[in-house]
Amino acid sequence: MSDINKVVLAYSGGLDTSVIVRWLQETYSCEVVTFTADIGQGEEVEPARAKAEALGVKEIYIDDLREEFVRDFVYPMMRANALYEGEYRLGTSIARPLIAKRLIEIANETSADAISHGATGKGNDQVRFELGAYALKPGIKVIAPWREWDLNSRESLMAYCEKHNIPVDFSSKKKKSPYSMDANLLHISYEGGVLEDPWMGPEEDMWRWSVSPEAAPDEATFIELEYERGDIVAIDGEKLSPATVLERLNKIGGANGIGRDDLVENRYVGMKSRGCYETPGGTIMLKAHRAMESLTLDREVAHLKDALMPRYAEMIYNGYWWSPERQMLQTAIDESQIHVNGKVRLKLYKGNVIVEGRQSADSLFDESIATFEEDAGAYNQADAEGFIKLNALRMRIAANKGRKLL
Amino acid sequence: MSDINKVVLAYSGGLDTSVIVRWLQETYSCEVVTFTADIGQGEEVEPARAKAEALGVKEIYIDDLREEFVRDFVYPMMRANALYEGEYRLGTSIARPLIAKRLIEIANETSADAISHGATGKGNDQVRFELGAYALKPGIKVIAPWREWDLNSRESLMAYCEKHNIPVDFSSKKKKSPYSMDANLLHISYEGGVLEDPWMGPEEDMWRWSVSPEAAPDEATFIELEYERGDIVAIDGEKLSPATVLERLNKIGGANGIGRDDLVENRYVGMKSRGCYETPGGTIMLKAHRAMESLTLDREVAHLKDALMPRYAEMIYNGYWWSPERQMLQTAIDESQIHVNGKVRLKLYKGNVIVEGRQSADSLFDESIATFEEDAGAYNQADAEGFIKLNALRMRIAANKGRKLL
Amino acid sequence: MSDINKVVLAYSGGLDTSVIVRWLQETYSCEVVTFTADIGQGEEVEPARAKAEALGVKEIYIDDLREEFVRDFVYPMMRANALYEGEYRLGTSIARPLIAKRLIEIANETSADAISHGATGKGNDQVRFELGAYALKPGIKVIAPWREWDLNSRESLMAYCEKHNIPVDFSSKKKKSPYSMDANLLHISYEGGVLEDPWMGPEEDMWRWSVSPEAAPDEATFIELEYERGDIVAIDGEKLSPATVLERLNKIGGANGIGRDDLVENRYVGMKSRGCYETPGGTIMLKAHRAMESLTLDREVAHLKDALMPRYAEMIYNGYWWSPERQMLQTAIDESQIHVNGKVRLKLYKGNVIVEGRQSADSLFDESIATFEEDAGAYNQADAEGFIKLNALRMRIAANKGRKLL
Amino acid sequence: MSDINKVVLAYSGGLDTSVIVRWLQETYSCEVVTFTADIGQGEEVEPARAKAEALGVKEIYIDDLREEFVRDFVYPMMRANALYEGEYRLGTSIARPLIAKRLIEIANETSADAISHGATGKGNDQVRFELGAYALKPGIKVIAPWREWDLNSRESLMAYCEKHNIPVDFSSKKKKSPYSMDANLLHISYEGGVLEDPWMGPEEDMWRWSVSPEAAPDEATFIELEYERGDIVAIDGEKLSPATVLERLNKIGGANGIGRDDLVENRYVGMKSRGCYETPGGTIMLKAHRAMESLTLDREVAHLKDALMPRYAEMIYNGYWWSPERQMLQTAIDESQIHVNGKVRLKLYKGNVIVEGRQSADSLFDESIATFEEDAGAYNQADAEGFIKLNALRMRIAANKGRKLL
Repeated sequence: MSDINKVVLAYSGGLDTSVIVRWLQETYSCEVVTFTADIGQGEEVEPARAKAEALGVKEIYIDDLREEFVRDFVYPMMRANALYEGEYRLGTSIARPLIAKRLIEIANETSADAISHGATGKGNDQVRFELGAYALKPGIKVIAPWREWDLNSRESLMAYCEKHNIPVDFSSKKKKSPYSMDANLLHISYEGGVLEDPWMGPEEDMWRWSVSPEAAPDEATFIELEYERGDIVAIDGEKLSPATVLERLNKIGGANGIGRDDLVENRYVGMKSRGCYETPGGTIMLKAHRAMESLTLDREVAHLKDALMPRYAEMIYNGYWWSPERQMLQTAIDESQIHVNGKVRLKLYKGNVIVEGRQSADSLFDESIATFEEDAGAYNQADAEGFIKLNALRMRIAANKGRKLL
Repeated sequence: MSDINKVVLAYSGGLDTSVIVRWLQETYSCEVVTFTADIGQGEEVEPARAKAEALGVKEIYIDDLREEFVRDFVYPMMRANALYEGEYRLGTSIARPLIAKRLIEIANETSADAISHGATGKGNDQVRFELGAYALKPGIKVIAPWREWDLNSRESLMAYCEKHNIPVDFSSKKKKSPYSMDANLLHISYEGGVLEDPWMGPEEDMWRWSVSPEAAPDEATFIELEYERGDIVAIDGEKLSPATVLERLNKIGGANGIGRDDLVENRYVGMKSRGCYETPGGTIMLKAHRAMESLTLDREVAHLKDALMPRYAEMIYNGYWWSPERQMLQTAIDESQIHVNGKVRLKLYKGNVIVEGRQSADSLFDESIATFEEDAGAYNQADAEGFIKLNALRMRIAANKGRKLL
Repeated sequence: MSDINKVVLAYSGGLDTSVIVRWLQETYSCEVVTFTADIGQGEEVEPARAKAEALGVKEIYIDDLREEFVRDFVYPMMRANALYEGEYRLGTSIARPLIAKRLIEIANETSADAISHGATGKGNDQVRFELGAYALKPGIKVIAPWREWDLNSRESLMAYCEKHNIPVDFSSKKKKSPYSMDANLLHISYEGGVLEDPWMGPEEDMWRWSVSPEAAPDEATFIELEYERGDIVAIDGEKLSPATVLERLNKIGGANGIGRDDLVENRYVGMKSRGCYETPGGTIMLKAHRAMESLTLDREVAHLKDALMPRYAEMIYNGYWWSPERQMLQTAIDESQIHVNGKVRLKLYKGNVIVEGRQSADSLFDESIATFEEDAGAYNQADAEGFIKLNALRMRIAANKGRKLL
Repeated sequence: MSDINKVVLAYSGGLDTSVIVRWLQETYSCEVVTFTADIGQGEEVEPARAKAEALGVKEIYIDDLREEFVRDFVYPMMRANALYEGEYRLGTSIARPLIAKRLIEIANETSADAISHGATGKGNDQVRFELGAYALKPGIKVIAPWREWDLNSRESLMAYCEKHNIPVDFSSKKKKSPYSMDANLLHISYEGGVLEDPWMGPEEDMWRWSVSPEAAPDEATFIELEYERGDIVAIDGEKLSPATVLERLNKIGGANGIGRDDLVENRYVGMKSRGCYETPGGTIMLKAHRAMESLTLDREVAHLKDALMPRYAEMIYNGYWWSPERQMLQTAIDESQIHVNGKVRLKLYKGNVIVEGRQSADSLFDESIATFEEDAGAYNQADAEGFIKLNALRMRIAANKGRKLL
C-alpha cells in the first residue's frame, strides 16, 4: 500500500469524510488533499477549511461550482427531458461527474496519484465518481474507504474518532437525521431509515426544501420562464444566470409544495432501493421545457428525442456522463434545441405545476391550419384519404391474404 | 356513387351525425345502419334510437361497450405506461379501435359494404377509424362526409337541417360549448375555441369532469389499489370489474382536482394542435402502475419497456392498434406483467397523486441487501471494485490512447 | 390548371420524360425547364440538350453532380453503415434528395412555380422527390404525370409520341430491357419483368455492372483503403476525390463479381416489391467501413450507432433526407467518426469482400490487454469476479424470491 | 476454502480442464463431478470418461446435447436475425447458456455446491457461464481457476502436470494450434497467436471447417430450405431434425467456402479482441431466414425486429440468455414468426450465398399491386398525392415559418 503518495479526497467537512482523512493518512501513509465544493447543497463550505487544517491537511481546495454545475450539467440534461425509469429526476447522478472532474483536475494540479471519496460500496455514487475519474485520467488510483475498512457501524466510527482525536460535534450527533441525505442545487435526497420499507410513507418532518402541498399557500403563484436554445435565461423578464435560475425556482417551487418524489428505483449495482427526493426547481423546469418544446420542435425530432431519452438518462444514472456515447447523444440533443426559444407561463399551486401558456417566435403551431374553422385552403382535407389508404395498404394486403388480427 | 348499398355509421345521436344520416341517404341512395355505443362518455345512448328511427333508419345498434373498452383496450395500454410525447394519456386514441371493430362487426352482420363516421379531415380520428376498418376488413368502403361535403360551417349545417327536416334541439343549440369535445370512460377532451391560441389558458368553466385543485377538498383522500398481472382488480379491498374500477377512479380523481392536462401535440396528419384533457382515473392508474412495477419488475425488463413505450404510444396515437406490430409489442408487454401483483396506497390531494406505499408478494426489493445497516454478508462491497474497473476499461484504454473527453 | 407558368422537370432525355415535356406543355400551357444531371448513371447527359431543344425547351440545365453526390450524400450515409431492412444498400434512395435539391434551386433561379418528375404513383421515388421539394420550398407545386395522365401502357405512350411528333429512337425501342432500371454512381437497380415472381431468379444477362462470381478472375485483387473521419480518401495510397473513389471501387468490385443483391423489400407506399441491385463499390465500402470502425470506435458508440441505424436507413429510404430528424441523427453520426481514421486492406475474389487487415493510429485495440499471453498486470483478472457478481445481482435476487427462468 | 464439498466442472477432457480437476481436488479438498457435452464440436466426448476416471472422478456426465442446442438456442436466435456489432454470428455465445443450464441441473442432481469452468478472466465466456449459473441457482458458488491460480503459462501448467502425474498427450502437445479455439455445431472460433495483430490476416491453414473460396468447387451447389414458423424443417424436401439441418448446412457450406468471418469485436469485459470464425451453416441460415421473412413479414413488424435486434444480440453476447429481458424479447420475436413459412432456394458458390427464389403460402407479396403493368385498379395511384402531402405537412409548415434545412 506504499505506492500512494498523495490522494485528493472529496471532503464534506462532516464526520465521515473527516474520519477518511485520518484513515487515509494512517493506512496509506500519504498526504491528503481535501476538495470541498459548493454545488448548492445549502451548507457553508468554508468551515471545512479549519476542519481539514486540524487534520493536518496542507492543500485545501474549496470551490464554488454552482454556476458550472447548472450551466454545464443540469442544463444539458434538461434539454433531454431526462427521467430515469420514467420518474427519477437524476438529482444526485448529475452532480457526480462534476465532482469527478474537479478531483482529477486537482490531482493533476497537486501531482496526486489517487483520489478518494466517501461513497459506500452498495450505491451508485462510487460508480459515478470512479467511472468519471478513470475516463478522465486512466492511470489514477481510487481509494474507496467504505469498501476497504471495517468501520461499518456508527459505533466503530465513533471509536475510531476517539482513538484518533477527531473532534465530533456532539450537537450534530444528537440531531443526526435517521436518513442518509445528499443535496445539491438540483435536489436533496433521502434514503434509509423508515424508507427501507416501501410500504411506509416518509414522515412529514423528513422533507427539508419544500412545504407539503397542504401547507402551501392557498393562492397560486404565476411565473414566466424565457428560453433560449432550450435553456432558461430569464424569469419574469429578469435575465438570470443558470445557478440563479435554479435557486429561484427551488425557492418558488418549494414554497408551493412542488417537487417531492417517492420512488423505488433500480441501482446500477443490481439492487432496488427506495429514495425520496425534493427537486422543486427541476420539476418546474422539466414541465416547462416540455411545453416549450411542444410548440417549437418538429414532431419527428421530438419523437426521436423521446426514444433516446431513456438511454440518455440511464447513462447519467449509471455514471457515464464522461463517456463518448453520452457526448455523441448530447450532440444530437443540443442540435435539436436551436429553435427551442420562447416563453412559458406557469401556475404553481400546492404541488401542481400547470402550464398556462407558451409562445415562441419559432413556433411551429399554425393556427390557420389547426383551426376548426374554415381555413381558406391552407389544408386540403381530401389529402387525408390518400394518406390513410396508403398507410393502410400493407394491412389490407395482409387481410386479403387471410391474416387475422382478431 | 351508386355502388354503396348499405353503410354502418358511428352515430352519436347529435346534430352532426344526424345530418350525416340524411346526407348518406341522399348522396349515396343507400340504407344507413346506425351504431351508437356507450363507452362511458357520460351521456345516455338510448335516446339515439328514437332519433335514428325518425331519420328512417331500420337497423339500429346500441351497445354498452364499457367493460370491453376498459378490459381490452385501456388495461392493455396501461400495462405499457403509455404516454404520447411524454404527456398525452391517449384518451381519445384508445377508444377509436373499439369503435372501428364494432363498425366492422356490424357491417358483417348486416351485409353492409361501407362504414362512415363523423370525424373531420384534419384530425387523427379519421385515421384511427379507417386504419382499423381497413385492417379488419380490407374491402370495406369508407365514407368520410367531412372530407366530401361542403357543409363546412355551422350555418350550412343548420340550413341543411332545415331543408331536410332534421329536428334541431334548440336548447342544446344555445348551450353549445365553444369547444370541440370527445368523451369516453378514460377521458374527456377539449379542442378549438380559445384553445387555438397556445398562449391562452382554458377558462375554468370548460372543465367538466374535475374540480380545480383550488376547489378540491382540503382533506386528502386515501385509496388502496390491488393489482394482478399489471391490472387493477380491486379498490380498497373491493373486487371490481375493469369499467367499475375506472368509473370509481374517475369520480375520486375528479373530486380531488386530478387529471387535467393542457398540451400542444403533434397530429399524425402533420400539424400541431392544442388540446385540453381530463383523465382523472387514468392519471391515477399510470402513477400507481409505475409504483407497482417499481417493486416487481426486473430492472432490464423495466428499461426495455421504457425504451419501447414511445413507439407503442405512437402506434396507438396514430391509429395502429389493429396492426401486427402493436400486437407483437403487446405480447412482450403482457409477458412482462406476470409478476406485477400487489398493492399500492395512494394519497389524492388537490391535483396531486402521491404514492404512500407499495407492497407485493412478488417484490424484488430486498431489504437485507438495500439496507444502510450491516447486511451480514448479503452483498459483498468488494465486488463493486471489479464491477467499476471493468466497466471503466474501455474508457481507460481510450484515454491511454490519447482520446479526450474534455 | 392554368395557374402553373413554368415547371422544372427532371429530364433524362429518354422517351418517358420526353413525353412528359410535351404533356406538360400541352396540359398546363406552361413553359418547361429541363434539368438533366450526371450522377454517374453511365450515360451521356449532353445529348439531352438537343432533345430538349427539339421539344421547344428554352431553359436547359445539364449538371455534373457526381462529386456532390458522393461527397454530400453517399459518404454521410456510409458513415452510418446504413442498410434498409438489413440488406438494401439504398442506392436509389440516396440520389433522390440531390435531384430534389437541384430541382428547387433551378425553380428558384428560373422563377418556376412547379417541379415535375417521371416517377410512377406506386413507387418510393415520387415520395422522395416530393418530400424533398416540399421541405425545401413549401409553396412549390408538384406535377406527377404518371399519377395524372392516362398514358399507362407503352402503346398509349407510343401513340402519344406519334400524335405529338416526338421522335422515338427505334433501335432503343427494340433493345428495350424488360426491366425497369435506375442507375447512379452508387448502383444500378432492376425491377419488373420476370422479377415480379419472387421465386424466379434474374437472368444472367440482366446484370450490367458486374460479372458473375463465376466469370470473375481466378486471381484475387487486393486493395488498401485509407480513411479520414469515416470517409475514404485514398485507394492504394493514391489520394482521390469522393466520386473517383466510388468510380474506382465500382470498377474493381464489378470486375470481381461483387455487389449483386436480390431482395424483396417493403416500399413506403405499403407494398412489397422485388428488386435486384448492383452496388459494387458500395458493397466494398460498407464492409471496409465496418472494419475501420471495429478498430477505432468505442463499444458503446458503436452499439448506439447500430441501434440508430435502422431508423436512419428508414429515413433515407422513405424520403426524409431533407428533414430535421435526419439532420439531427447525422450530427451524432458525424460526431462519432472523428477517430475513424486508418487503413483497411481488402481481398476481392469472386463476389467476396474479405478484410485482410485494419490498422489505425486511433486504434482502441490494445494488444497488451487483449493478449492470451501474460500481460504484466495490464488487466486484473480478479476484477471479473466482482463485475459478474454485480451484473448477476438482480437475477440472483429474483431467483431467491422464487422467480423461474426455466 | 473448506466450504466447498462438491463442484461440477465443465470438462472437455483436454489438458487444461484435466489440470483443473486436480487443482480443484487439491485446492478445495472437494469432490469433482465432470460434465462433458457433445454440442457438435466435432470431437469424441466418450474418451473424456476414462480421463476423468483416471483423475479419480466418480460422477461423470457425458451428454449429447446437439439437438437441444440447435432447437432451443440456435433456432430461437436465428428467428431474430441476431448479429452482434453487425457482423458476429454469436457462435460461441449461444452455446454457453446451455452449458450453464446443464451445470446447474447436474449440481442439483448431485447436490454439488459449486460449479467450475475453464474460461479465462479476460473473456466473455466466464461471464456467460456465471451469469447463467447465478440466474438459475442464485446460491451456487462459482470457481474460476484461471482467475485464482498462478498457472498462467503453458510451462507452469506442464510443471503442474508433471508434479501431479496428469498424463499429457505428447502428440497433441506437438500439434498444438497456435490459436485458442472453441467449437460447437454452429461454429468454430480462433483467437490469439498471429491474430493479435489486426493488420495481419490469418494463415490459410488455420481454417478447419471450410475450404477457401478459391479451393471450393467451380460448380455451384443449389439447395432448397423449407421453413415453418421461422425455423428450417427440411432441406431439399427432406424433413430433418434441427441438429441434422445444421450439420448438413455446415457440410455444404464449408465445402463451398462459405462462412468465414474475421472481426475485431468489443468484449463485455471492456476490451477489443480479434477473432476469426467459421459459421458455414449459420451464414446460410441467416441469409435464407431474411429472405423468407422478406416475403412473409409485415413491414412494421420487420422494422421493429430490426430495431430490437442489436439489443437482443447484445444480450446473448454479454451472457444474458437466462434473463427476463431476453425472454421478454423472445416472446415478441417468436410471435412475429407465425407466418414465416415457405421455401427459399439458394445457390452456394465459392463463399457466396445467393438467394435464387423464395415462395410462401403466407406471402404478403402481391403481384397484382406491385406490378409495373396496369393493375386493374388494385392500387389507386392518386392516393399517393395525399399520402405525400400530409407526410410533408410538418416540414412545409416549418419551412413556411422560416426554418432552413440547407
